[in-house]
Amino acid sequence: MTTFARRAERVQPSAIREFLALAGDPRITSFAGGYPDPTLFPIDELHKIYDDLLAKENASALQYTASEGLPELRSLVAARLTADGMPCTGDDVLITQGGQQGLDLTAKLFVDPGDVIVTERPTFLGALIAFNPCEPDYRSVRMDDEGMDTDALEEVLRGTDRVKLVYTVPDHQNPTGRTMSLARRQRLVELAEEHDVVVLEDTPYRELRYEGERLPTIKSLDPHGRVVHLGSFSKILAPGLRLGWALATPEVREKLALLKLAADTQNGTLNMRAVAAYLEGFDIEAHIEDMLPTYRHKRDLMLATMEEHFPPGITWTRARGGLFTWATFPPRLDVAAFQRDVLIPRSGVIVVPGAPFFADRPESHHARMSFSGVPDERLVAGVRSMGALLAEALA
Amino acid sequence: MTTFARRAERVQPSAIREFLALAGDPRITSFAGGYPDPTLFPIDELHKIYDDLLAKENASALQYTASEGLPELRSLVAARLTADGMPCTGDDVLITQGGQQGLDLTAKLFVDPGDVIVTERPTFLGALIAFNPCEPDYRSVRMDDEGMDTDALEEVLRGTDRVKLVYTVPDHQNPTGRTMSLARRQRLVELAEEHDVVVLEDTPYRELRYEGERLPTIKSLDPHGRVVHLGSFSKILAPGLRLGWALATPEVREKLALLKLAADTQNGTLNMRAVAAYLEGFDIEAHIEDMLPTYRHKRDLMLATMEEHFPPGITWTRARGGLFTWATFPPRLDVAAFQRDVLIPRSGVIVVPGAPFFADRPESHHARMSFSGVPDERLVAGVRSMGALLAEALA
Repeated sequence: MTTFARRAERVQPSAIREFLALAGDPRITSFAGGYPDPTLFPIDELHKIYDDLLAKENASALQYTASEGLPELRSLVAARLTADGMPCTGDDVLITQGGQQGLDLTAKLFVDPGDVIVTERPTFLGALIAFNPCEPDYRSVRMDDEGMDTDALEEVLRGTDRVKLVYTVPDHQNPTGRTMSLARRQRLVELAEEHDVVVLEDTPYRELRYEGERLPTIKSLDPHGRVVHLGSFSKILAPGLRLGWALATPEVREKLALLKLAADTQNGTLNMRAVAAYLEGFDIEAHIEDMLPTYRHKRDLMLATMEEHFPPGITWTRARGGLFTWATFPPRLDVAAFQRDVLIPRSGVIVVPGAPFFADRPESHHARMSFSGVPDERLVAGVRSMGALLAEALA
Repeated sequence: MTTFARRAERVQPSAIREFLALAGDPRITSFAGGYPDPTLFPIDELHKIYDDLLAKENASALQYTASEGLPELRSLVAARLTADGMPCTGDDVLITQGGQQGLDLTAKLFVDPGDVIVTERPTFLGALIAFNPCEPDYRSVRMDDEGMDTDALEEVLRGTDRVKLVYTVPDHQNPTGRTMSLARRQRLVELAEEHDVVVLEDTPYRELRYEGERLPTIKSLDPHGRVVHLGSFSKILAPGLRLGWALATPEVREKLALLKLAADTQNGTLNMRAVAAYLEGFDIEAHIEDMLPTYRHKRDLMLATMEEHFPPGITWTRARGGLFTWATFPPRLDVAAFQRDVLIPRSGVIVVPGAPFFADRPESHHARMSFSGVPDERLVAGVRSMGALLAEALA
């Protein structure tokens, strides 16, 4: 067989992918997925919407449409972004196949092989998967409870002129749950301008905020058009519709749209019509408000149970939103090995071992744990048995 | 602003994209689109299916699923491919975001910058758009009524060892409507093996067959696993669902699935569930049979009207299926200029000027004309006034 392209070397099975297969097993208690809680999907409203849409006179809902996305949906997304401090019109918005496609398209637009992408340390694994086919080099920048350390970022930017993109999940980050402070957001925009780089702001968890104030997006602080802003309906409506958006300068948006056309022609027309109808006919802000107590409760329950049952020497983040906490174990604990040899066989619990979330210099003594999607009793039982096994392993 | 990646130079607005915008104007008679006839979509059946799917207990239809595609749908597609002479199981099938994504993923898997992709002459414009970001060189191979000339292909393959992919639409090709003969299919497979290249077989129009016998797919003639076979539900169900498939060897399928995961995580779960339910609950083969007379009639009407009203010196293909005829004008007629200066302003008719369908050495005296999607009376009136304007221009 003929050889693969060079980029294929950078395309390898990920740890998460294997766990997601396991997660379908009913004997498994999975803290591994990043799945939203399906009981929170507005399925009755969507039922009504699809029922209306699939009437004989609406055949155009099943036809091709514009590759940038359905114009009504672009306008409705623009209105929400405008309300969130990013004044724009539908023309500025590109509809994407979930947030993931925004990552893929942006990397393709800016990153040549050997160019540097800066990420948080740790960062969203799915972003690395999206970026890898562009064959970038990576530099990861340490984080603390204020998000990416912009002093450390500045060092990286001074050390090389090959940086093209700085990738960040500023709100309730995946995997750490951390939120970048306002001062850091402002500094990031200054540094991007000073060093001529693009900031890729990825905000799938922005609206799942359980406490703390709403901070301005990085895009809203950007006078220079250096920020590509991505968002998604996956966590606020439903991931199975695969709809997200990108907001960028007209020049960048146009290029992203052409790359979108090349990649898959367009998003599904029917789903775009449905989400447009949802935004027009229902109150998505109220829907989001209604979801928050459930997730807040889950977060509180998981953190309290960890507090009670995890042995000393383990720390974890307290996310103000999103779906995740990031646990850090004593460096001698290799979480992947512990999970394989002890946690799965003896408790049926899975988490995501932290190493793949590092763009470079991986550390193996962390885990991402999701508090969504597991019923309360199982959540408590799972964390408790994990705690007992950890106590044993660390004794 | 920071510079774009090198591949962005190959990402430019296409002629078709501009025409598709024009096609929305009710004063325009468009022979330009490749749109299937929306009155043929099985909207009542889909209505019932979405109605069943969006019941409270089916929230998983809105959740994430496997990046390779919904297992039921993969199996159902495999059963159809098996019936079409390509024995396989669901494991061998990757669900894609329409046929277009199969083109994108396959190019990414095999093509490094400077590698050569061989195409038919002319070829599907959307494929060039998909391939371009991989920065290939192109060699186009002449066609006749038996499809790609395999002697000419052999010359190209002997002339360079940089060929990685041979791209073909063997059934009712876009833009020419031509079908590759069995002998050429067999020869293509031999040449691929001999010269160590991959054949990318793209079959969106395969099942829209109005006359002539069903020929074996190239994949079904391939003992070496050198063929990546792509198909799509866009023309046989509805394009707005954005569902297609790729069939390849396990090694290639696995890599394509990883590239799919990187690009957009997965297809829409709800739409995959719906199409699986359609394939299980309804008879898609009967649905396709039912559509054929409409398209056959449109084709016959367009060709007869061209015969009657086009002036001498113009030839066109007689497609045995698909949606297109390819018209060839005297070399002195630049179709793009004629359309801009005469055809649109004086008749409101649009076609797709042929130049962008050539991967190299473009010719400007052809047009792709689609017979689907325009009501009979407008179709006749449009072809007639186009004929009159052509007679004037060529006089």
